Amino acid sequence: MTNFVPTREDKFSFGLWTVGWQGVDVFGGAVRPPLSPAEAVHKLAELGAYGITFHDNDVFPFGCTPAERDQHLTPFRRALEETGLAVPMVTTNLFSHPVFRDGGFTNNDRDVRRFAIRKVADNLDLAAELGARTFVAWGGREGAESGAAKDVRTALDRYKEAFDVLGSYAIEQGYDIRFAIEPKPNEPRGDILLPSIGHALAFINELEHAELVGLNPEVGHEEMASLNYAHGLAQALWHGKLFHIDLNGQHGPRYDQDLRFGAGNARGAFWTVDTVENGGYDGPRHFDFKPPRTEDMAGVWESAKACMRNYLILREKSRAFRADPEVQQALRDARVDQLAQPTLSQGETIATLRAEDFDPEEAGRRGMAFERLDQLALEHLYGVAG
Amino acid sequence: MTNFVPTREDKFSFGLWTVGWQGVDVFGGAVRPPLSPAEAVHKLAELGAYGITFHDNDVFPFGCTPAERDQHLTPFRRALEETGLAVPMVTTNLFSHPVFRDGGFTNNDRDVRRFAIRKVADNLDLAAELGARTFVAWGGREGAESGAAKDVRTALDRYKEAFDVLGSYAIEQGYDIRFAIEPKPNEPRGDILLPSIGHALAFINELEHAELVGLNPEVGHEEMASLNYAHGLAQALWHGKLFHIDLNGQHGPRYDQDLRFGAGNARGAFWTVDTVENGGYDGPRHFDFKPPRTEDMAGVWESAKACMRNYLILREKSRAFRADPEVQQALRDARVDQLAQPTLSQGETIATLRAEDFDPEEAGRRGMAFERLDQLALEHLYGVAG
Amino acid sequence: MTNFVPTREDKFSFGLWTVGWQGVDVFGGAVRPPLSPAEAVHKLAELGAYGITFHDNDVFPFGCTPAERDQHLTPFRRALEETGLAVPMVTTNLFSHPVFRDGGFTNNDRDVRRFAIRKVADNLDLAAELGARTFVAWGGREGAESGAAKDVRTALDRYKEAFDVLGSYAIEQGYDIRFAIEPKPNEPRGDILLPSIGHALAFINELEHAELVGLNPEVGHEEMASLNYAHGLAQALWHGKLFHIDLNGQHGPRYDQDLRFGAGNARGAFWTVDTVENGGYDGPRHFDFKPPRTEDMAGVWESAKACMRNYLILREKSRAFRADPEVQQALRDARVDQLAQPTLSQGETIATLRAEDFDPEEAGRRGMAFERLDQLALEHLYGVAG
Amino acid sequence: MTNFVPTREDKFSFGLWTVGWQGVDVFGGAVRPPLSPAEAVHKLAELGAYGITFHDNDVFPFGCTPAERDQHLTPFRRALEETGLAVPMVTTNLFSHPVFRDGGFTNNDRDVRRFAIRKVADNLDLAAELGARTFVAWGGREGAESGAAKDVRTALDRYKEAFDVLGSYAIEQGYDIRFAIEPKPNEPRGDILLPSIGHALAFINELEHAELVGLNPEVGHEEMASLNYAHGLAQALWHGKLFHIDLNGQHGPRYDQDLRFGAGNARGAFWTVDTVENGGYDGPRHFDFKPPRTEDMAGVWESAKACMRNYLILREKSRAFRADPEVQQALRDARVDQLAQPTLSQGETIATLRAEDFDPEEAGRRGMAFERLDQLALEHLYGVAG
Repeated sequence: MTNFVPTREDKFSFGLWTVGWQGVDVFGGAVRPPLSPAEAVHKLAELGAYGITFHDNDVFPFGCTPAERDQHLTPFRRALEETGLAVPMVTTNLFSHPVFRDGGFTNNDRDVRRFAIRKVADNLDLAAELGARTFVAWGGREGAESGAAKDVRTALDRYKEAFDVLGSYAIEQGYDIRFAIEPKPNEPRGDILLPSIGHALAFINELEHAELVGLNPEVGHEEMASLNYAHGLAQALWHGKLFHIDLNGQHGPRYDQDLRFGAGNARGAFWTVDTVENGGYDGPRHFDFKPPRTEDMAGVWESAKACMRNYLILREKSRAFRADPEVQQALRDARVDQLAQPTLSQGETIATLRAEDFDPEEAGRRGMAFERLDQLALEHLYGVAG
Repeated sequence: MTNFVPTREDKFSFGLWTVGWQGVDVFGGAVRPPLSPAEAVHKLAELGAYGITFHDNDVFPFGCTPAERDQHLTPFRRALEETGLAVPMVTTNLFSHPVFRDGGFTNNDRDVRRFAIRKVADNLDLAAELGARTFVAWGGREGAESGAAKDVRTALDRYKEAFDVLGSYAIEQGYDIRFAIEPKPNEPRGDILLPSIGHALAFINELEHAELVGLNPEVGHEEMASLNYAHGLAQALWHGKLFHIDLNGQHGPRYDQDLRFGAGNARGAFWTVDTVENGGYDGPRHFDFKPPRTEDMAGVWESAKACMRNYLILREKSRAFRADPEVQQALRDARVDQLAQPTLSQGETIATLRAEDFDPEEAGRRGMAFERLDQLALEHLYGVAG
Repeated sequence: MTNFVPTREDKFSFGLWTVGWQGVDVFGGAVRPPLSPAEAVHKLAELGAYGITFHDNDVFPFGCTPAERDQHLTPFRRALEETGLAVPMVTTNLFSHPVFRDGGFTNNDRDVRRFAIRKVADNLDLAAELGARTFVAWGGREGAESGAAKDVRTALDRYKEAFDVLGSYAIEQGYDIRFAIEPKPNEPRGDILLPSIGHALAFINELEHAELVGLNPEVGHEEMASLNYAHGLAQALWHGKLFHIDLNGQHGPRYDQDLRFGAGNARGAFWTVDTVENGGYDGPRHFDFKPPRTEDMAGVWESAKACMRNYLILREKSRAFRADPEVQQALRDARVDQLAQPTLSQGETIATLRAEDFDPEEAGRRGMAFERLDQLALEHLYGVAG
Repeated sequence: MTNFVPTREDKFSFGLWTVGWQGVDVFGGAVRPPLSPAEAVHKLAELGAYGITFHDNDVFPFGCTPAERDQHLTPFRRALEETGLAVPMVTTNLFSHPVFRDGGFTNNDRDVRRFAIRKVADNLDLAAELGARTFVAWGGREGAESGAAKDVRTALDRYKEAFDVLGSYAIEQGYDIRFAIEPKPNEPRGDILLPSIGHALAFINELEHAELVGLNPEVGHEEMASLNYAHGLAQALWHGKLFHIDLNGQHGPRYDQDLRFGAGNARGAFWTVDTVENGGYDGPRHFDFKPPRTEDMAGVWESAKACMRNYLILREKSRAFRADPEVQQALRDARVDQLAQPTLSQGETIATLRAEDFDPEEAGRRGMAFERLDQLALEHLYGVAG
């Protein structure tokens, strides 16, 4: 057993807005003091993270002048240099200011849409300059509370237009950066456009620069729609579109809880890590959580540390699970290996199938042996296996 | 006000398994006698439907010989002839027999997958013969209750293989038929593959004969995942993939209720009809519901009749809503028209946007006037508008 | 058809915090200017409301001196006098200030609990002085995100203690006021204590002054837990405990949407009004909603007006439904009247039942005729009945 | 570490209908052969259970004669004798036969209600004879899919009447047995009466023989309504009403999954065991699950064994958690101990509170240290603590 202490090789990153969340919600105000970006960088570096990510307005205020922007960026950049922390991902805030009350890229107001695209382009310049390879787009205010307010097909036209324009811009500028769309079903809008991994994957296929655009799926966002996050990751991987991930915790369909990774759906977290580790994803393990409002700053750092620790614990469990000979036998007993064989062999056709003798009654009596397999997985989670 | 009596021009169709459901559920047995397919045809024709749809084993038993099959089909065909009812869609039962306990196309057992493809091909022949233009694929048992039992990426390979094989077969046979995938998030499996409209749309893009494959979204299936059905339809239309629809009623995330259309989410039903009628869909208005187990056959026919009646009522309301000058003004006040304008004009670039003067504070004070618009819609639903 | 314009006899009331909500949520800041309590009073009076309700800190700031408090109250009182608006209900804010991060009455910190009780007592004095007859207690921060943090049984002891102390205080002071507990399942806490109407009803039975304590159920809070709000109201009425109601709109299990009444679950709203009007409730029809963040102040007032208008529309529909002879026949056909007859007649025992001849097979063939009855209700909602 | 092999002292019991479920659901037929009650008894005894429970019609067919009943009971009784297995609980099937399509105790049809009460009384005689101390009442078909079909207040009158009549009967017969109501929010009815632990607790207070009636809460039933099961158990214990428990697994609001205990919400299962073990409950640990339809009989027994094993694993973890000095310190740091102190000391009043000096700003800066505590709990679940 390792001691579960993260190193930079583990590629853990955090959003500035996570440890920096002051606790403002619909029902109450700030419970924690502001956290300066530089302090966040130093503290996260110390805890073992390799990267930090941010929205533009996590570092500098909305609407500030270029000079003010630089002034705010200076200590942040210095902290990055001092710690060697990377900025693997940057994202834009198109949801906090009143101007985005109806979203950015799909706002009914054309001038707001133009402003939103410009704001993202400006931030893309900064992202490129800081060496970020992923640019996340969470369209949290793109949506509607009511049926007539948003013509969805037209909104998707505008959504596509924004990504086409920005994709072209990134190419023209020669930026080595890819976009990652973060789906969410609802909150803060009644229904958000591109509500799940699937919807976003489908949308990307219609883009001019589809190769530049992938996904940034978040645990809680899928689970709010009762969807299986690990299944969603697997489908995104199958399409070659898992560009980034947002790890946190949630208890099913309710408000967006943003619990620390591991809290929430514990078995789901195991399969998440198993899928991330074995599915060919090699990007950052990025945490997008909110330390509960009950905590002070000590609690904030406890929860941040625990995100990484839980990932490492689950990674070790996933490895042990996959290496366990009993598990390997149980996988064969469940014929998981058979699924990897093409259903038809080379040259076979429907006629081949029709010619063959198959007894569905006999086959119908076969058990799948899934319960045994799943119990082994659970015992690995419990730490009582082997 | 019309009398809301359906005609064949309204293109209403019903699954045989809807009015024919005998009420078997997890907690109880049949409460209604079997309904012969021929009787269902006659009765639905009488009520004003234009079409009937079926799974193979709604008409003839699983595993019967070709002779037995024909024997079962004879009275059904005769009833179709007598009534002139169409068979616009056919689908295959890959979920009731024990052999499909782990699904059909993605069953871990290769021989079961082969059998499933063959069963579908056989049924495709029948569908073509009966003139069906849509072949629905609901993979209700394709999924898992536990994490290791199903390798999702491999399962998607097999899923794709099945559609590729069957698409080729349909082309070779010269069938004028398209496939429509019906997504569902869960039930009867813990998590079903292709759980939402979005996931299925994305999947289709990877198929060899993607042009042959679209969607058959069901109201309740999307609402079980808290997703907005009308938004889903709109995205499917945007991708040119709304091939068929399944109308019914549901009360959010819980068991699959299959209420009659109109019962359940009433406002959702209004926007569903509005989207279907105005979004360019011209296929059947197909009902996939289950008359509650409380009902006898009289109640079954009441509920079937009500499905069509409610659609007609909502269609009239949608037309009145769109024609109402007050609504048209409210749509302009909400700048819904502005969304149809491209965000950038011909020749404009990021540089253009950066050069323009925009005051986000002023724009941030603008209300969207959505509440007024939505209240007008609600009053049309209530029948108190104008 | 009436014109659906509210009068004071309709007993509509609004929380100050509803029309006064500036739009702060987890993802963004204020989008609307502050609304002074006096202005809210004038505007609501003008729109036809009869009453206004408030949390202490909706009118005066947390922690202000008595002199400051009076200064803030003066224009509010004057507006009440000028308009004749009533204050039928008052409630206390035990959730916004950081001191309540772990709740008030069940905070782990004893000194915070003491402060919470004192804050409520102070506000109870004000409520009595303003003539309020109901004092609502929403324990929004009483709960937990994690399992060990809150010992639920001990927390219920403290919860009971608070109501016992405050009940005694109200009696000693001779206040003619009753407490109404407002249940909620979650948000802003992961799990809130007394999460549903049922849990709160059960809790009340253990209180020293149970007769003083009832419920204030909110539409959205029950629907967030997939519970039927009208059923919940009916059970609360059955226990004689429906002291107050909070009307708004919600779309099932997700974040607390607080839509205007009528928006959300439209059929649920019909049954809600039907239950409120016919179930013996005669208190205020109180709206606890949040005008969406998309709206400016004009939209705020549109939505407030619509809350009342929708109630009146649904009240008329409920009356028409109950008066419709076709409905009355359908109710008899569904044997709803038989449910009102005691199952055993005077003097009958199990022995009587055992002696009787009953054919379950015959009875099992009877349909309940519920679909026809429900379709009539739906057509009344649509405005196409009769 | 123990070997997690159950003994009779662990008091594990299973419903006959759990391991005996043949897999019939809405979408498919039986996948497993019938299991004779006697065989179930022998096999469960062998696996380490101490008890078995049943619905009347799990052992003998609906409507059979007394002679047939005895004939079916004989091998079952013999198996009980041979194995020494107890029958700690019995329950009645008021939901499978068509006669119960609208429920039993609250069926609109009076003759069906009379039959339902008689059926329960007959089964109560059997329960007493077999030495059962708990008689469970799950009213799965008591409810409605539509608003007018069921007058909830009247239905509660009839529900109460049934328990009053049956309570009196049990007393007259001198039976040493208590009733336990099992709440469920929905499925198979659209909305079920007494939908949660809270609603049932409240209802019991109105019964004539309230002391005879308590609860049988089921994990999945509460979680289907997004409610915290362990919190619900705690409230039931607080009211002295936890008479029996139904353990299984569920993934939030969706169809009733009845997964084996431990599968589903793993962290919830930990807190469930912790609450059961430390909350004063000493009844059977009863499993009410359904082995997934994918399994053959070998899989059925694997899953049954795993239910017990998982309980034992979690019991050991709960003990270790409570004994861990680091946890005990963390509990103090979170001031969980302070919650056990009455908020007011003997003789204190509101006046005392008003006189004291309290600085909410200072108190508002205190963190609750819950994240650290919860992380320790999670590490005990993972088996990496200490």
